[in-house]
Amino acid sequence: MEGCVFCAIAHGEVDDDLVAFQSESVYVIPALRQRLKNRPHWLVLPIGHVHNLHDAAPELLGELVSVVTRLTAAVPRLYRADGSVVLQNNIEPDGKPFHLHLHVIPRFAADGFRDPDPTVAEVPRAQRVAQSADIREHLAH
Amino acid sequence: MEGCVFCAIAHGEVDDDLVAFQSESVYVIPALRQRLKNRPHWLVLPIGHVHNLHDAAPELLGELVSVVTRLTAAVPRLYRADGSVVLQNNIEPDGKPFHLHLHVIPRFAADGFRDPDPTVAEVPRAQRVAQSADIREHLAH
Repeated sequence: MEGCVFCAIAHGEVDDDLVAFQSESVYVIPALRQRLKNRPHWLVLPIGHVHNLHDAAPELLGELVSVVTRLTAAVPRLYRADGSVVLQNNIEPDGKPFHLHLHVIPRFAADGFRDPDPTVAEVPRAQRVAQSADIREHLAH
Repeated sequence: MEGCVFCAIAHGEVDDDLVAFQSESVYVIPALRQRLKNRPHWLVLPIGHVHNLHDAAPELLGELVSVVTRLTAAVPRLYRADGSVVLQNNIEPDGKPFHLHLHVIPRFAADGFRDPDPTVAEVPRAQRVAQSADIREHLAH
Protein backbone atom coordinates (compact mmCIF):
# COMPACT_ATOMS: atom_id res chain seq x y z
CA MET A 1 0.00 0.00 0.00
CA GLU A 2 1.30 3.44 -0.90
CA GLY A 3 2.79 5.27 2.05
CA CYS A 4 3.17 2.07 4.12
CA VAL A 5 6.72 1.72 5.41
CA PHE A 6 6.30 -2.03 5.98
CA CYS A 7 5.32 -2.48 2.32
CA ALA A 8 8.36 -0.43 1.27
CA ILE A 9 10.68 -2.68 3.31
CA ALA A 10 8.87 -5.81 2.08
CA HIS A 11 9.54 -4.82 -1.53
CA GLY A 12 13.19 -3.94 -0.97
CA GLU A 13 12.70 -0.21 -1.52
CA VAL A 14 14.29 0.72 1.83
CA ASP A 15 16.07 -0.82 4.81
CA ASP A 16 17.28 -4.02 3.15
CA ASP A 17 19.98 -4.28 5.78
CA LEU A 18 17.40 -4.43 8.58
CA VAL A 19 15.76 -7.57 7.20
CA ALA A 20 16.82 -10.57 9.30
CA PHE A 21 14.76 -13.12 7.38
CA GLN A 22 12.70 -13.11 4.21
CA SER A 23 10.65 -15.83 2.52
CA GLU A 24 8.14 -15.50 -0.31
CA SER A 25 5.39 -14.37 2.06
CA VAL A 26 6.97 -13.29 5.37
CA TYR A 27 9.84 -11.17 6.66
CA VAL A 28 11.46 -10.22 9.98
CA ILE A 29 12.95 -6.91 11.16
CA PRO A 30 13.89 -5.46 14.57
CA ALA A 31 11.32 -3.00 15.96
CA LEU A 32 12.14 0.70 15.64
CA ARG A 33 11.21 1.30 19.29
CA GLN A 34 12.27 -1.25 21.88
CA ARG A 35 12.01 -1.58 25.67
CA LEU A 36 15.25 -0.88 27.51
CA LYS A 37 15.45 -4.33 29.13
CA ASN A 38 13.79 -6.42 26.41
CA ARG A 39 16.07 -6.29 23.40
CA PRO A 40 16.18 -7.22 20.62
CA HIS A 41 12.47 -6.87 19.95
CA TRP A 42 11.40 -8.53 16.66
CA LEU A 43 8.57 -7.94 14.22
CA VAL A 44 7.29 -10.74 11.97
CA LEU A 45 5.28 -9.41 9.01
CA PRO A 46 3.61 -10.55 5.80
CA ILE A 47 5.08 -9.24 2.52
CA GLY A 48 1.57 -8.28 1.43
CA HIS A 49 -0.39 -5.48 3.07
CA VAL A 50 -2.76 -7.36 5.40
CA HIS A 51 -4.51 -5.51 8.26
CA ASN A 52 -5.72 -7.87 10.97
CA LEU A 53 -4.71 -11.37 12.01
CA HIS A 54 -8.05 -12.73 10.76
CA ASP A 55 -7.48 -11.12 7.35
CA ALA A 56 -4.48 -13.41 6.68
CA ALA A 57 -5.21 -16.48 4.55
CA PRO A 58 -4.61 -19.82 6.35
CA GLU A 59 -1.35 -20.52 4.50
CA LEU A 60 0.06 -17.07 5.28
CA LEU A 61 -1.06 -17.38 8.89
CA GLY A 62 0.77 -20.71 9.15
CA GLU A 63 3.97 -19.22 7.71
CA LEU A 64 3.79 -16.18 10.02
CA VAL A 65 3.39 -18.33 13.12
CA SER A 66 6.06 -20.77 11.98
CA VAL A 67 8.54 -17.86 11.75
CA VAL A 68 7.34 -16.58 15.15
CA THR A 69 8.18 -19.96 16.67
CA ARG A 70 11.65 -19.94 15.09
CA LEU A 71 12.20 -16.73 17.02
CA THR A 72 10.66 -17.89 20.32
CA ALA A 73 12.80 -21.04 20.10
CA ALA A 74 16.01 -19.09 19.30
CA VAL A 75 15.59 -16.19 21.75
CA PRO A 76 16.55 -17.94 25.03
CA ARG A 77 19.69 -19.45 23.51
CA LEU A 78 20.83 -16.37 21.57
CA TYR A 79 20.18 -13.72 24.21
CA ARG A 80 20.35 -15.75 27.43
CA ALA A 81 16.70 -14.80 27.86
CA ASP A 82 14.37 -16.63 30.22
CA GLY A 83 11.64 -16.72 27.61
CA SER A 84 9.61 -14.52 25.34
CA VAL A 85 6.25 -12.89 24.84
CA VAL A 86 4.32 -12.85 21.57
CA LEU A 87 2.02 -9.87 21.06
CA GLN A 88 -0.25 -8.85 18.22
CA ASN A 89 -2.67 -5.91 18.09
CA ASN A 90 -5.80 -5.84 15.96
CA ILE A 91 -6.42 -2.23 16.89
CA GLU A 92 -4.68 1.06 16.19
CA PRO A 93 -5.48 3.79 18.72
CA ASP A 94 -5.19 6.53 16.11
CA GLY A 95 -7.32 4.65 13.63
CA LYS A 96 -4.78 4.61 10.78
CA PRO A 97 -4.74 1.50 8.59
CA PHE A 98 -1.78 -0.67 9.47
CA HIS A 99 0.27 -3.54 8.14
CA LEU A 100 -0.10 -6.70 10.25
CA HIS A 101 2.90 -7.39 12.48
CA LEU A 102 3.54 -9.89 15.26
CA HIS A 103 5.89 -8.87 18.07
CA VAL A 104 8.36 -11.35 19.57
CA ILE A 105 9.97 -9.85 22.66
CA PRO A 106 12.60 -11.53 24.85
CA ARG A 107 11.81 -11.79 28.55
CA PHE A 108 14.33 -11.78 31.38
CA ALA A 109 13.60 -12.78 34.98
CA ALA A 110 13.69 -9.30 36.54
CA ASP A 111 12.89 -7.18 33.47
CA GLY A 112 9.68 -5.68 34.88
CA PHE A 113 8.02 -6.19 31.51
CA ARG A 114 4.95 -4.08 30.88
CA ASP A 115 2.88 -2.88 27.98
CA PRO A 116 2.86 -0.02 27.30
CA ASP A 117 6.31 0.66 28.75
CA PRO A 118 7.71 4.18 29.34
CA THR A 119 11.28 2.89 28.75
CA VAL A 120 10.48 2.22 25.09
CA ALA A 121 12.89 4.23 22.97
CA GLU A 122 13.99 4.46 19.37
CA VAL A 123 17.02 2.23 18.76
CA PRO A 124 19.85 3.73 16.66
CA ARG A 125 19.80 2.38 13.12
CA ALA A 126 23.32 0.89 13.32
CA GLN A 127 22.28 -1.09 16.38
CA ARG A 128 19.22 -2.49 14.62
CA VAL A 129 21.35 -3.46 11.62
CA ALA A 130 23.66 -5.31 14.04
CA GLN A 131 20.69 -7.03 15.71
CA SER A 132 19.59 -8.35 12.31
CA ALA A 133 23.08 -9.45 11.31
CA ASP A 134 23.42 -11.40 14.55
CA ILE A 135 20.30 -13.51 14.04
CA ARG A 136 20.24 -13.89 10.25
CA GLU A 137 22.05 -17.23 10.07
CA HIS A 138 19.91 -18.67 12.89
CA LEU A 139 16.68 -17.93 11.03
CA ALA A 140 17.97 -19.17 7.67
CA HIS A 141 18.00 -22.85 8.62
CA MET B 1 -0.14 -33.77 33.09
CA GLU B 2 -1.15 -34.60 36.66
CA GLY B 3 -2.08 -31.54 38.67
CA CYS B 4 -2.58 -29.37 35.57
CA VAL B 5 -5.98 -27.68 35.63
CA PHE B 6 -5.91 -27.06 31.87
CA CYS B 7 -5.41 -30.79 31.25
CA ALA B 8 -8.31 -31.56 33.62
CA ILE B 9 -10.61 -29.21 31.69
CA ALA B 10 -9.32 -30.55 28.34
CA HIS B 11 -10.27 -34.08 29.35
CA GLY B 12 -13.71 -33.13 30.64
CA GLU B 13 -12.88 -33.83 34.29
CA VAL B 14 -13.96 -30.36 35.46
CA ASP B 15 -15.55 -27.16 34.16
CA ASP B 16 -17.30 -28.60 31.11
CA ASP B 17 -19.71 -25.66 31.20
CA LEU B 18 -16.84 -23.17 30.78
CA VAL B 19 -15.73 -24.64 27.44
CA ALA B 20 -16.87 -22.35 24.62
CA PHE B 21 -15.34 -24.42 21.81
CA GLN B 22 -13.64 -27.79 21.55
CA SER B 23 -12.13 -29.63 18.61
CA GLU B 24 -9.92 -32.73 18.61
CA SER B 25 -6.82 -30.72 19.45
CA VAL B 26 -7.89 -27.28 20.75
CA TYR B 27 -10.34 -25.74 23.21
CA VAL B 28 -11.45 -22.28 24.38
CA ILE B 29 -12.42 -21.03 27.86
CA PRO B 30 -12.81 -17.58 29.45
CA ALA B 31 -9.83 -16.56 31.60
CA LEU B 32 -10.27 -16.88 35.36
CA ARG B 33 -8.87 -13.38 35.90
CA GLN B 34 -9.91 -10.60 33.54
CA ARG B 35 -9.26 -6.87 33.23
CA LEU B 36 -12.17 -4.70 34.33
CA LYS B 37 -12.54 -2.97 30.94
CA ASN B 38 -11.45 -5.81 28.63
CA ARG B 39 -14.03 -8.54 28.99
CA PRO B 40 -14.57 -11.25 28.03
CA HIS B 41 -10.93 -12.36 27.95
CA TRP B 42 -10.45 -15.69 26.13
CA LEU B 43 -7.86 -18.45 26.37
CA VAL B 44 -7.16 -20.76 23.41
CA LEU B 45 -5.38 -23.96 24.46
CA PRO B 46 -4.23 -27.30 23.09
CA ILE B 47 -5.92 -30.42 24.51
CA GLY B 48 -2.46 -31.96 25.06
CA HIS B 49 -0.01 -30.60 27.63
CA VAL B 50 2.40 -28.51 25.52
CA HIS B 51 4.63 -25.91 27.22
CA ASN B 52 5.88 -23.28 24.76
CA LEU B 53 4.61 -22.05 21.41
CA HIS B 54 7.62 -23.63 19.67
CA ASP B 55 6.85 -27.00 21.28
CA ALA B 56 3.57 -27.26 19.36
CA ALA B 57 3.69 -29.38 16.18
CA PRO B 58 2.92 -27.44 12.97
CA GLU B 59 -0.57 -28.90 12.60
CA LEU B 60 -1.49 -28.07 16.20
CA LEU B 61 -0.02 -24.58 15.81
CA GLY B 62 -2.16 -24.04 12.71
CA GLU B 63 -5.31 -25.15 14.54
CA LEU B 64 -4.54 -22.95 17.58
CA VAL B 65 -4.03 -19.86 15.43
CA SER B 66 -7.06 -20.62 13.30
CA VAL B 67 -9.22 -20.64 16.46
CA VAL B 68 -7.50 -17.45 17.66
CA THR B 69 -8.54 -15.74 14.40
CA ARG B 70 -12.15 -16.93 14.79
CA LEU B 71 -12.11 -15.03 18.08
CA THR B 72 -10.33 -11.90 16.80
CA ALA B 73 -12.82 -11.78 13.92
CA ALA B 74 -15.86 -12.27 16.22
CA VAL B 75 -14.84 -9.96 19.07
CA PRO B 76 -15.63 -6.54 17.47
CA ARG B 77 -19.06 -7.67 16.31
CA LEU B 78 -20.06 -9.54 19.47
CA TYR B 79 -18.82 -7.07 22.06
CA ARG B 80 -18.85 -3.79 20.12
CA ALA B 81 -15.09 -3.80 20.65
CA ASP B 82 -12.71 -1.65 18.61
CA GLY B 83 -10.33 -4.56 18.16
CA SER B 84 -8.34 -7.11 20.10
CA VAL B 85 -4.90 -8.03 21.35
CA VAL B 86 -3.38 -11.49 21.12
CA LEU B 87 -0.83 -12.34 23.81
CA GLN B 88 1.20 -15.46 24.52
CA ASN B 89 3.90 -15.92 27.15
CA ASN B 90 6.76 -18.39 26.83
CA ILE B 91 7.89 -17.63 30.37
CA GLU B 92 6.39 -18.20 33.80
CA PRO B 93 7.76 -15.85 36.48
CA ASP B 94 7.48 -18.49 39.21
CA GLY B 95 9.12 -21.14 37.04
CA LYS B 96 6.31 -23.69 37.26
CA PRO B 97 5.69 -25.79 34.16
CA PHE B 98 2.61 -24.53 32.36
CA HIS B 99 0.11 -25.54 29.71
CA LEU B 100 0.37 -23.42 26.56
CA HIS B 101 -2.41 -20.84 26.24
CA LEU B 102 -2.99 -17.92 23.88
CA HIS B 103 -4.88 -14.91 25.19
CA VAL B 104 -7.42 -13.07 23.02
CA ILE B 105 -8.49 -9.86 24.76
CA PRO B 106 -11.04 -7.35 23.41
CA ARG B 107 -9.86 -3.75 23.11
CA PHE B 108 -12.01 -0.65 23.42
CA ALA B 109 -10.97 2.87 22.41
CA ALA B 110 -10.52 4.32 25.91
CA ASP B 111 -9.84 1.14 27.87
CA GLY B 112 -6.36 2.13 29.06
CA PHE B 113 -5.14 -1.39 28.29
CA ARG B 114 -1.94 -2.39 30.03
CA ASP B 115 -0.11 -5.55 30.95
CA PRO B 116 0.15 -6.31 33.79
CA ASP B 117 -3.02 -4.51 34.88
CA PRO B 118 -3.95 -3.85 38.53
CA THR B 119 -7.67 -4.01 37.66
CA VAL B 120 -7.38 -7.71 36.83
CA ALA B 121 -9.79 -9.61 39.09
CA GLU B 122 -11.25 -13.07 39.37
CA VAL B 123 -14.55 -13.27 37.50
CA PRO B 124 -17.42 -15.08 39.27
CA ARG B 125 -17.94 -18.56 37.89
CA ALA B 126 -21.55 -17.93 36.82
CA GLN B 127 -20.40 -14.96 34.78
CA ARG B 128 -17.72 -17.03 33.00
CA VAL B 129 -20.29 -19.73 32.24
CA ALA B 130 -22.50 -17.02 30.70
CA GLN B 131 -19.55 -15.64 28.67
CA SER B 132 -19.02 -19.11 27.19
CA ALA B 133 -22.69 -19.69 26.48
CA ASP B 134 -22.88 -16.37 24.63
CA ILE B 135 -20.08 -17.17 22.17
CA ARG B 136 -20.50 -20.93 21.73
CA GLU B 137 -22.66 -20.81 18.61
CA HIS B 138 -20.40 -18.19 16.97
CA LEU B 139 -17.34 -20.44 17.32
CA ALA B 140 -19.14 -23.59 16.18
CA HIS B 141 -19.48 -22.51 12.54
